[in-house]
Amino acid sequence: MSKSLEEEHPQKAFGWAARDATGALSPFNFSRRKPLAGQQEMQLALSPFNFSRRANQDEDVTLKILYCGVCHSDLHFTKNDWGFSFYPMVPGHEIVGIVTEVGKKVTKFKVGDKAGVGCIVGSCRACPSCDQDAESYCPKLIFTYNGIYHDGTPTYGGYSDMIVVDEHFVVRFPENLPLDGGAPLLCAGITVYSPMKYFGLSKPGMHLGIVGLGGLGHMAVKFAKAFGVKVTVISTSPSKEKEAVDRLGADSFLVSRDPKQMEAAKGTMDGIIDTVSAVHPLLPLIDLLMSHGKLIMVGAPEKPLELPVFPLIMGRKIVAGSAFGGMKETQEMIDFAAKHNITADIEVIPMDYISTAMERLVKADVRYRFVIDIGNTLKASCDGNV
Amino acid sequence: MSKSLEEEHPQKAFGWAARDATGALSPFNFSRRKPLAGQQEMQLALSPFNFSRRANQDEDVTLKILYCGVCHSDLHFTKNDWGFSFYPMVPGHEIVGIVTEVGKKVTKFKVGDKAGVGCIVGSCRACPSCDQDAESYCPKLIFTYNGIYHDGTPTYGGYSDMIVVDEHFVVRFPENLPLDGGAPLLCAGITVYSPMKYFGLSKPGMHLGIVGLGGLGHMAVKFAKAFGVKVTVISTSPSKEKEAVDRLGADSFLVSRDPKQMEAAKGTMDGIIDTVSAVHPLLPLIDLLMSHGKLIMVGAPEKPLELPVFPLIMGRKIVAGSAFGGMKETQEMIDFAAKHNITADIEVIPMDYISTAMERLVKADVRYRFVIDIGNTLKASCDGNV
Repeated sequence: MSKSLEEEHPQKAFGWAARDATGALSPFNFSRRKPLAGQQEMQLALSPFNFSRRANQDEDVTLKILYCGVCHSDLHFTKNDWGFSFYPMVPGHEIVGIVTEVGKKVTKFKVGDKAGVGCIVGSCRACPSCDQDAESYCPKLIFTYNGIYHDGTPTYGGYSDMIVVDEHFVVRFPENLPLDGGAPLLCAGITVYSPMKYFGLSKPGMHLGIVGLGGLGHMAVKFAKAFGVKVTVISTSPSKEKEAVDRLGADSFLVSRDPKQMEAAKGTMDGIIDTVSAVHPLLPLIDLLMSHGKLIMVGAPEKPLELPVFPLIMGRKIVAGSAFGGMKETQEMIDFAAKHNITADIEVIPMDYISTAMERLVKADVRYRFVIDIGNTLKASCDGNV
Repeated sequence: MSKSLEEEHPQKAFGWAARDATGALSPFNFSRRKPLAGQQEMQLALSPFNFSRRANQDEDVTLKILYCGVCHSDLHFTKNDWGFSFYPMVPGHEIVGIVTEVGKKVTKFKVGDKAGVGCIVGSCRACPSCDQDAESYCPKLIFTYNGIYHDGTPTYGGYSDMIVVDEHFVVRFPENLPLDGGAPLLCAGITVYSPMKYFGLSKPGMHLGIVGLGGLGHMAVKFAKAFGVKVTVISTSPSKEKEAVDRLGADSFLVSRDPKQMEAAKGTMDGIIDTVSAVHPLLPLIDLLMSHGKLIMVGAPEKPLELPVFPLIMGRKIVAGSAFGGMKETQEMIDFAAKHNITADIEVIPMDYISTAMERLVKADVRYRFVIDIGNTLKASCDGNV
């Protein structure tokens, strides 16, 4: 019997993987493909898979991973909360590293460059979303992990020593941006930056509400302030006011459980970025919007929320969802972040702390993002765990 | 004791009014103000009311009402379904008539002109919505009925012999447009036209879904086809297919209760205009949208709907509400309708048929709009009903 495509991947890789929906992570040996440096052509046309697009390994870049952020969706994916996880799974899609090898057609990178990889490593490159630089909404997008690549093999994420990615899905990492604090920009950062731009909420002088002060929320405050937008943080926790206003620079703070405060702020906001992934009422947020205002959901509650339609109609208001951004926008975001010194507030952890970090994440016990120091703490290949 | 402002209104008017939340309508004598023709100034500055803007009676127009459409919201308002009705209430906001008198500063109209009045008769003229010709979203908009006018008096609608309205809120009624079939354009027409324009869903070649084939839905099909948009009618009733496709010109028809049909149409629509005011599931509609698609609610279910957030996020989709349009857009709509011979499909009824019509409306037993022949059937003033 011939070897599987995955078995033919020539580069040995090592990371930490979840093996089932318990979400428990443990060391894991696997393999990666290798960028095509010479004239050889891929044999994929012979494969039995019906690929949406041939993978072009001559456009691949290998990164030695130095840091990887821990996104809340890593937790959801490892535990199969959304119902489409498969295992083994190496999580991680806030990846920063150094280019160690480039395919022969790579133009954006050379060995030694700093680079980043976010939520996706592939898309069809031909649909309307791809044509509009919105690869994040391509129906055939390939997630950085828990995805199936063009060559039919599973994708593995950044809780690992190296990764091979088509250069189109790799961003240049600005020189002055810290590698560790910059890593979360690749998911948390672009996830809040993208809707502010797409929905026209980044114009100076606008008033933007930001619901929830976690990994996404604290990034949203920083980007919005850099845009010159007036920011009100909306939270259930009065204790976060000092942090939001004094340290992060929000202009004001609303306790969502205080009806008086909420009443006084009715109809004052151009838009709201809602980062909360727990079930919560939408009406009080819709009421905060002025006419034609936009409530953008970037957190994904597992159960449907209650949507009152009448208040939407009377104010021609919008409730929308937004995921991470396309590659062009992600590059724009990270360059903007570098220019404005925007990084995530992070707690750097060693790889073997990940189980504890995940437990703390469940309790929202982190300010505001865990970042794994892959370069210094991911130990060399283990035996017997494949 | 001095007379109330309302009692000082000099013009005797006659219509049909609901007296309480039973919604039962009966003959009603009341009064209207009179356009200022001479040099006299209003005394409103002396009034105890805190007006948002002085009414300018010299910009008023009197219409002799000839036809008035029966909108589904007339039913909701008369029965106080939305909780803010007051009585006596003369419903009706799809009003067409002939100008019989103009104030001294009126520029758009002369006696004898055909004219129409829709959902509102006033707004603040100073807020951001008013500044953007979106008076329909002014926080101080004044409904054509069940509103309080600048002078502190209740507004009474089009189930009556005449009405006096600031010319800003009166539209010119094109010569070639039938008065009866054109009346419903003033609410039903603009309510579906406005979101197609505002949300960018009127571009030729787009694919638009229209949910529900009633007063709003059948108008939506006509406007969308005139825009050059591909139209799919979505309905629970398979029996409406022939009507939708053969008579109204829809390109296709989807039975929303048929999972196979719905599955096959997934991800194909740029937008959906949802006219259904009963509680219904949103997820199947969201699934019909392609990425970046827009689901626009113009029907207002009394209870909140279930909104699944994940599908919104993954496709950057929008759920929005939209009411009727501003005055500039209403004029544009009615001129467009005249150019493209768009009118509502109507059943003309006499005034004293209104109770039966309301009962039939509850059962959706009308194709597609009742229009009251006010000019020929509203009997002269009654006694003892004020």
